[in-house]
Amino acid sequence: MFKHEKQLLKDVRVDAPNPNYAAMLQEQLGGPQGELKAALQYLSQSFRIRDAAIKDLFLDIAAEELSHMEMVATTINMLNGHKLDAQNATIGNIEAHVLSGLAPMLTNASGQLWTAAYVNETGDLAADILSNIAAEQRAKVVYEYLYRQINDKGVRETIDFLLNREEAHNTLFREAFNKIHDTGSLKDWGVTQDSKIYFDMSTPGKYFDVNNPQPASFNNPDQQNQSQH
Amino acid sequence: MFKHEKQLLKDVRVDAPNPNYAAMLQEQLGGPQGELKAALQYLSQSFRIRDAAIKDLFLDIAAEELSHMEMVATTINMLNGHKLDAQNATIGNIEAHVLSGLAPMLTNASGQLWTAAYVNETGDLAADILSNIAAEQRAKVVYEYLYRQINDKGVRETIDFLLNREEAHNTLFREAFNKIHDTGSLKDWGVTQDSKIYFDMSTPGKYFDVNNPQPASFNNPDQQNQSQH
Amino acid sequence: MFKHEKQLLKDVRVDAPNPNYAAMLQEQLGGPQGELKAALQYLSQSFRIRDAAIKDLFLDIAAEELSHMEMVATTINMLNGHKLDAQNATIGNIEAHVLSGLAPMLTNASGQLWTAAYVNETGDLAADILSNIAAEQRAKVVYEYLYRQINDKGVRETIDFLLNREEAHNTLFREAFNKIHDTGSLKDWGVTQDSKIYFDMSTPGKYFDVNNPQPASFNNPDQQNQSQH
Amino acid sequence: MFKHEKQLLKDVRVDAPNPNYAAMLQEQLGGPQGELKAALQYLSQSFRIRDAAIKDLFLDIAAEELSHMEMVATTINMLNGHKLDAQNATIGNIEAHVLSGLAPMLTNASGQLWTAAYVNETGDLAADILSNIAAEQRAKVVYEYLYRQINDKGVRETIDFLLNREEAHNTLFREAFNKIHDTGSLKDWGVTQDSKIYFDMSTPGKYFDVNNPQPASFNNPDQQNQSQH
Amino acid sequence: MFKHEKQLLKDVRVDAPNPNYAAMLQEQLGGPQGELKAALQYLSQSFRIRDAAIKDLFLDIAAEELSHMEMVATTINMLNGHKLDAQNATIGNIEAHVLSGLAPMLTNASGQLWTAAYVNETGDLAADILSNIAAEQRAKVVYEYLYRQINDKGVRETIDFLLNREEAHNTLFREAFNKIHDTGSLKDWGVTQDSKIYFDMSTPGKYFDVNNPQPASFNNPDQQNQSQH
Amino acid sequence: MFKHEKQLLKDVRVDAPNPNYAAMLQEQLGGPQGELKAALQYLSQSFRIRDAAIKDLFLDIAAEELSHMEMVATTINMLNGHKLDAQNATIGNIEAHVLSGLAPMLTNASGQLWTAAYVNETGDLAADILSNIAAEQRAKVVYEYLYRQINDKGVRETIDFLLNREEAHNTLFREAFNKIHDTGSLKDWGVTQDSKIYFDMSTPGKYFDVNNPQPASFNNPDQQNQSQH
Repeated sequence: MFKHEKQLLKDVRVDAPNPNYAAMLQEQLGGPQGELKAALQYLSQSFRIRDAAIKDLFLDIAAEELSHMEMVATTINMLNGHKLDAQNATIGNIEAHVLSGLAPMLTNASGQLWTAAYVNETGDLAADILSNIAAEQRAKVVYEYLYRQINDKGVRETIDFLLNREEAHNTLFREAFNKIHDTGSLKDWGVTQDSKIYFDMSTPGKYFDVNNPQPASFNNPDQQNQSQH
Repeated sequence: MFKHEKQLLKDVRVDAPNPNYAAMLQEQLGGPQGELKAALQYLSQSFRIRDAAIKDLFLDIAAEELSHMEMVATTINMLNGHKLDAQNATIGNIEAHVLSGLAPMLTNASGQLWTAAYVNETGDLAADILSNIAAEQRAKVVYEYLYRQINDKGVRETIDFLLNREEAHNTLFREAFNKIHDTGSLKDWGVTQDSKIYFDMSTPGKYFDVNNPQPASFNNPDQQNQSQH
Repeated sequence: MFKHEKQLLKDVRVDAPNPNYAAMLQEQLGGPQGELKAALQYLSQSFRIRDAAIKDLFLDIAAEELSHMEMVATTINMLNGHKLDAQNATIGNIEAHVLSGLAPMLTNASGQLWTAAYVNETGDLAADILSNIAAEQRAKVVYEYLYRQINDKGVRETIDFLLNREEAHNTLFREAFNKIHDTGSLKDWGVTQDSKIYFDMSTPGKYFDVNNPQPASFNNPDQQNQSQH
Repeated sequence: MFKHEKQLLKDVRVDAPNPNYAAMLQEQLGGPQGELKAALQYLSQSFRIRDAAIKDLFLDIAAEELSHMEMVATTINMLNGHKLDAQNATIGNIEAHVLSGLAPMLTNASGQLWTAAYVNETGDLAADILSNIAAEQRAKVVYEYLYRQINDKGVRETIDFLLNREEAHNTLFREAFNKIHDTGSLKDWGVTQDSKIYFDMSTPGKYFDVNNPQPASFNNPDQQNQSQH
Repeated sequence: MFKHEKQLLKDVRVDAPNPNYAAMLQEQLGGPQGELKAALQYLSQSFRIRDAAIKDLFLDIAAEELSHMEMVATTINMLNGHKLDAQNATIGNIEAHVLSGLAPMLTNASGQLWTAAYVNETGDLAADILSNIAAEQRAKVVYEYLYRQINDKGVRETIDFLLNREEAHNTLFREAFNKIHDTGSLKDWGVTQDSKIYFDMSTPGKYFDVNNPQPASFNNPDQQNQSQH
Repeated sequence: MFKHEKQLLKDVRVDAPNPNYAAMLQEQLGGPQGELKAALQYLSQSFRIRDAAIKDLFLDIAAEELSHMEMVATTINMLNGHKLDAQNATIGNIEAHVLSGLAPMLTNASGQLWTAAYVNETGDLAADILSNIAAEQRAKVVYEYLYRQINDKGVRETIDFLLNREEAHNTLFREAFNKIHDTGSLKDWGVTQDSKIYFDMSTPGKYFDVNNPQPASFNNPDQQNQSQH
């Protein structure tokens, strides 16, 4: 069950309306690396997870991403201001001025409607967690791009918070990944010869080779730290 | 902010796995009249609402629809059972057997991916509430179609509950609509001659006419009841 | 059978080419609240209607919306002018300048391709008519947004006409709705307890309650007028 | 302006309901080679055509394709019968049974929603007419595939009629094409060396060569006949 | 099997970065008439072709179109320059500045994601070749539109090359078409009366007539030349 | 430049036609975890990579995935057999029987058209490589699902090969990832307090915590092996 509190997860503010930046920020509301995608990906994956600890992690983060989505949408709403004027909306999509009456929408910055094609779920925990780690890394990258292109202090504070939360989620998903060694699609990795060959299909250039294929596992920073003591 | 409780809004159960019905029920998870659409439509619309009572109504229902989505997805997950076997999945989409590992997905019954094109938001309260009333009516219709095609008692209980909740939401949205007379797009209705003419563009047949155009308003059942006393 | 007359339903003209406004006006040609959507929604719904009067109404309006689409497209074509120059197309989508050779297209203002996901049809007359009332209200809203952002007198006349026609359709659909009391999805409304409960899912705030659930019905303005005499 | 006559362009009938074939026939209502695509492609292209004869041809055929769409939809509606039962809908999409209440829909046979991505328009008459010739040929092919898979005599009569009409349109578009020699994108064809070279990019095999590049023109059967006398 | 050589099919260069033109040129990378569409259409069609010469032609051109795609993408990458700044991206989509970090993307100029709905394949050689002839003509038209709107000499050289290659492909597809007379969907053309009638559905205006329906065949320029000797 | 060799990367064969399995196998031709997506994702990402070794790796694998796509499509073509008969196509999409004339298509198993929404590219090497590792893991999972549901020995050999190649790619991408420590989006990880907090948003349950956030890095199996000596 989801419950809603009108208090935002973290308050947002903007120094001034900025319709062009509102369009740009739409990227993280309704784009492929945005908050809605993250929330729905983790929620969708969670339904079939049996490990209680990992299921809890997915649902904690899903609920938080929904709450991020609310923060992003509220910020866009403020940035859109109160003047319907597409002539001043020269960056990206103009739907706020001709369709939604300045309300935030489920599109990316250029107006592409959100699609569930952005969501990856496989029913395999290893594949799903790797998908989520990659998704968090991409979300961080997009927030960095957006951060660099705005001076508004209120917006910067919000992006800074969200960006760092993606790092925290990334760290947590990696920790979860390290708990599922040798399960699901990680089992029996690198058994046949076909998994050990490099095909040199683009010439010139040959730099890599497959040596000793192993399923993915992440370095454990805490263990690393201990070993350095 | 959204918080999640692992307790479902109402418990769900199924008498037995039923992969074909799982595909059918996907319609209300990821289809145009489904729970995800309802939740995201009301949430999206809510960001720009200034009337505190109506904003609260939209958010109450949005959170409940998210919780319905969770009930529908949990039911699909149970109906999918534990056997990956597309040969027995002869009704509708087969993605549970080739892609999602039996997890519920954000598609309709036939596999069309969910799209934000299903979501209507205009920034105008009258238009948005009318959209929501229509959406609730359509959701009820789809649940009726699904109810008729299943004998599983657990599933029927869940559908019966959800269907009746859509009725409750419908009633509430109409009550909200009656509070906003003569505002937004309801103002100055039927002023020009063009709004008072019937164009007979399909022949033969001519049954209707425009008499005295007025903006929409719903009968108030309580007032009706009172006037009958 | 559809027949075409080269005479427009109502002549259109523009004071001057205006490529940016051409892009904006695309919203009502190929967007979710546009004329193509309306025409195809009513036509699609009509195939299964048995009530001759209501079927006639749907087809009258569908044919008229197709004729509106032609007016909108002709206007866009005029606004696009004769100069292929994306550098001057700084508002919204630029496809007229790189793809369609200045011809109007089936996209919205920002270039999202028209999709049948915009079309709602349920086979249930109550749900379909409510969908259409909502669609007409939304179309009116979008025309209002577009009207405010153009000074071209020719364009304003056309939008004014189309906006008022949506009001007329809205009025007619409501009249049709009031003829189908207690049929289809309107039957047996508010029977179970679940349809009579308010779930307070967003806090703080609690303003509404479900009292006496009734299926939707619209006030009849003519009866109202009579009762005031 | 479009006017609608309730009389179909040609009456349709079916021997018996056939929900599976209804799903299959959806391909020509809402698929990429279907009647809606044809109608909207020719209509969209027509808005910018200045040659009165060719514009008339496009609009004649557009109106006829809309009327074909009506015939196909009416046939699907009959084939869907009156029993909502997805368990018997084992071929293709099942939306008629879970969403549309047995009404025909704007999807292809497998449930993919119609999209304007199917529509090609370039503002160049040569390119548009070639697109239409190809579209008519593809429509014929799909009708042939559908014809072979049904024994219902009523359905076969309708498909036979529609298939032959596509041939007629194809013939007409070719005649129009032969009127526009050396205009638009047909001008200055094969001028540079790059237009006269064959790149052998798939090995083994080399069968073709570019000799004397000329813009497309179709054989004129009547002239051929005359020259044979 | 596809092999890649890092050497481009033809070197590309740009005089200077030009983010707005980068967005415009996206049309031929990820738009409906672009290189990706062409490559995937011919490749998809090739799998079922049995005629070795024609299959070879399709695969030669498919591989070349992939190589064109690489040229277009490399050019866009250069045009995007090195400065992430959506405020200067006032034409078309802005995803390079908020999502892809200035990398070329699989979208059209306005940000619509590439979709396989652009690809036509029927398993019928006549229909597929006609589709390809039309596709090459449309691709030429779009390159002409783009050529006119840029002064950068490097870009113009590349477009000029690509445009002429589309002409060469067009010529080759027509030659292939003339080899398949009276096969597949070209057989038994114009047999019934329905294929010989003109329906005058748009009034006023009546200019064409169906005289002697024949399947499509292209003039053979070499034979023409010979007959002129 | 791409060159094509008609020799497949590895020969494919099927024991017998199997139209239903042909539909299922479409998942890896035109689905979100399929070969086309992989090829186009790595190719798209490669355009902006400056590190020669990593660029080479991306292009080697992109070309190989295109060659895999050819193997999958050839297999589907064989499985489709030679009989157009949708009545026997009871699993998944039926487009082979009504649209493509038994040719393989760019759709998933249920008929959803391929969309570039499946492709992730960010211009950041860390994010892109993590996306690719996840993509390879998901591709492996889908091949496992498909392998379990077919007894045809020819098909099983092909899937076994492809599945093991995804493992090889996965291994290589991880090796590449370990070369880019402390660059791009991996820099300055875990600096603010917000990146070190766990939000417990789903109750009951609290299992994880953020201790010492570090950017992702994979265990190096060779180093591990060495350290065990």
